[in-house]
This record gives sequence, C-alpha cells and structure tokens, in this order.
Amino acid sequence: MKPIIILVDPQLGENIGMVARAMGNCDLSELRLLNPRDGWPNEMAVRASAGAETILENTKVFETFQDAIADLTHVVATTARHRRLEKIVFTAKEMADDLIKSAYQKAGIVFGPEKYGLSNDHLSLCNAVVQIPTKSDFSSLNLAQTVLICAYEWYQAVQTNPKGNFKNREGTPASRLEVNLFLEHLENSLEASDFFRPAHKKKRMLQNLRNIFQRIDLTEQEVRTLRGVIRSLEEGPHASPRN
Amino acid sequence: MKPIIILVDPQLGENIGMVARAMGNCDLSELRLLNPRDGWPNEMAVRASAGAETILENTKVFETFQDAIADLTHVVATTARHRRLEKIVFTAKEMADDLIKSAYQKAGIVFGPEKYGLSNDHLSLCNAVVQIPTKSDFSSLNLAQTVLICAYEWYQAVQTNPKGNFKNREGTPASRLEVNLFLEHLENSLEASDFFRPAHKKKRMLQNLRNIFQRIDLTEQEVRTLRGVIRSLEEGPHASPRN
Repeated sequence: MKPIIILVDPQLGENIGMVARAMGNCDLSELRLLNPRDGWPNEMAVRASAGAETILENTKVFETFQDAIADLTHVVATTARHRRLEKIVFTAKEMADDLIKSAYQKAGIVFGPEKYGLSNDHLSLCNAVVQIPTKSDFSSLNLAQTVLICAYEWYQAVQTNPKGNFKNREGTPASRLEVNLFLEHLENSLEASDFFRPAHKKKRMLQNLRNIFQRIDLTEQEVRTLRGVIRSLEEGPHASPRN
Repeated sequence: MKPIIILVDPQLGENIGMVARAMGNCDLSELRLLNPRDGWPNEMAVRASAGAETILENTKVFETFQDAIADLTHVVATTARHRRLEKIVFTAKEMADDLIKSAYQKAGIVFGPEKYGLSNDHLSLCNAVVQIPTKSDFSSLNLAQTVLICAYEWYQAVQTNPKGNFKNREGTPASRLEVNLFLEHLENSLEASDFFRPAHKKKRMLQNLRNIFQRIDLTEQEVRTLRGVIRSLEEGPHASPRN
C-alpha cells in the first residue's frame, strides 16, 4: 500500500501545495494535515501544487496526532537532528525498502512543522524514525524537499521491488489506535501505582515506555495479551476463590 | 571530485537560490549559470538560498554552453522526457554511482531552463543523460527539486563509496573544450566535403555525430588521433612524394 503523508502543524499553504506536488511526482495520493495554521482548504496550496489538486481535494484534516495516525499500522517519523532515541533510525532509502519489503497494511510518514520539526512526544508514538542524510553543518531541507526525498525513495523502491515481499507473519497488525489505547491503559495503571516518580520525570519515562512498544509492530492479539497483563498486574495477588 | 552544477538559461532568481540551498544540503559547492534571465548577482537568489550564500558568491556566469562546460571531462544532462537519443540514460542513482565509481576528473550535471528543459543541441554536447524516474503522467519536478534529487543521490553514493573506485584507464581524459574543438573540426570538414545533404537534415545529422563521440569519454591522445584522422581524410589520396 502507498504510504500516507502526514504533516503536523504545517504553516504555509504554499508548502502544503509543494508537498502535494512532490507526492504526485512520486505516485503518492493520500495527504493528512494536523492543525494547518492558515486553515483548510487553502488557495495558496492549490496554486503551489502545479496540478496536484486531486490530492489536496482529498486531504483530511485532524485535530490530534493520535487521531491522525489512529488507523495506521506502521508510522515513521522524519527528523533532521540526530536524537538519542530508542528507535530504529532509517535513512530515506532504508525506510523505503522497509515499507516495500514489510508490506505494512497501512503505513504513514510524519513530517513536523517547518521550523521546529516533531517533538519527542510525537516521536514516541511512531514505530521508527527516518533521518535524511545531508551535510551535517547545512542540513536544513525544507518541508516539501523532505517529503520529496521520502516519496522519491519510495517510488524508486517500488520500481525495484514492484510486488513487495510480504513479511511472513501470523496475525493482523494492530492499528495505532489499538496500540495507543493500550499505552494509555498502561500509563493510567502506572499512574495509579505511583510509578512515575519523581513527577518531573514522568514525561520522559512515558516516552521511553512508548518507544519500547512502538518498536515491535504489535499484532492485535499481542495488544490484547499485553492489556491482559496490565489488568492482571493491577489486580495484584488476591485470595484465590479456591482457597 | 564533486560534480559542478550548471543551470542553462535559468529564469527565476528564487529558483537559483533554492538550487544553491539543495547543493549546500548535499555538500556540493560549484554552481555555474548560463545566461541567467534576471542578471547576476540576484537578490532573490540570496534570499531563497537559506544560508548558501558562499555558493552564490562563487557562482560563475557564462555566455555560451560550450564555454560553461569547456574544462569538464564528463558532462551529464538532465531531461524529464524520454527522448530517442543515442546516449547512456542513467537514473539519478545510476548517475551518482557512475560519478563516484568512474572518478571523472571534473564532472558536471546540466539542468535546462524551468519551462523547456535542455535542447537536443545541448544534449548532443553531453556524455550521458539522467532521467529522474517519476510518475509518467505527473513528472514535472521543478528545477530546484531536480537538482536536489541529483545532489542527494550523489551525496548518498559518496557515503556508500567514500573513496571511489578509479577507472583503470591510461591517459588523461580530454576536456570538453578539446572534444568540442574536435567536433567543430569534424563539422567544418564534413561541411566542406558536402556531407550534410539534404541541408535541412544537417542539424540532426550533426547531433547524431556528436552523440557518437560524446559516449566514449575520449582521452587527450584519442582526440589528437581523431583530429589526425580528419586531416588525413581531408587531404585525400594524393600523389605520394615517393611516386
């Protein structure tokens, strides 16, 4: 399946249009926007899209990041800077090869806002990270260029591997929604058990936890199993009915 | 050596600036312009370069295509459309791998004007063609994007193959100037011998001839040899001094 392009907090309509154009160049068609600053639809986007209007007409707008990725089964986040993250870090080509070879049911590639990029919070909800190798002291690709490189590499990978090699896996991949509900469940349970101490470290602890579970491409069954594990631990040791 | 980027008849200063930015992202540094429409230097180019001013300050401007490529030993032309050309046609990645592996002494990549691309005349003076694979019914990459993809692929190829594998060749590669002087010599000789008939086919016949000799990466010695061949043929059979 073609990966979906997701722009988080994009600012200029012109950039959104150029993203659509780059997508069209490389045969991608589904664009999602999280809180576009200048509203949607956007006339500047149409003008900059050089004929990729269909992509813009079908673009969906979301209000939370979790909603924007809820139905996806694999999410890759783009980031310019090297960060210390317990995540698989792909080059654009490696990401593209992985998208084709793993044949995820519904994959997305997430791009941060023009000036700031994605937050660690966003990253902690994604399965992997892609960093485009550019010169270290001059690495400021703009938004549309970053999308272009990712889309271009995907398109090249499709040409090389047109059918994909399906991962030999049992079970249905869990959607982001299922994984995120599990993570919320885990967070609430840990909150209740006073796990997050000291309080100011909670955010970082939570990111680390999420990163662990995002790395493993859970199936639906595995998510159910993990939720069972949490419930069981929550209930704790109790007098067995038999005793 | 890093390939030199050559823009033929570029129109918008903004595009030239974005080209410089894409070059900076991928560690390229030498830019040449052939007849920039809005003159040079150009304030719009500086504004769009996002910090790549050094590249713009060192940019050289040329008045003829032959001058712009005179000192190069290998020239690749970019073209969007598939044309019937007797040339090696590379994808961007293949071109990049070839640049690294062949370790040309001084290579250039040529990009046509925004709206029209390069002419067959330009192409006939280049050694190879690069076509960036994009979706066939929506293939309009803009100028800066086309440069970005080429520069990006070169940068990726450098990372993979940092030292290059030098071609095992004897002799010094001929510069474009030497090759072009040879081609002019050939053209003049053929003109004199009434080779170009009918006259309206001359242009195409000349392109075909040029394409033959551009494909073979001539050495300086080979160019001298070929010029000797032409002179000899021009002089024709003549009474040998010995007879």
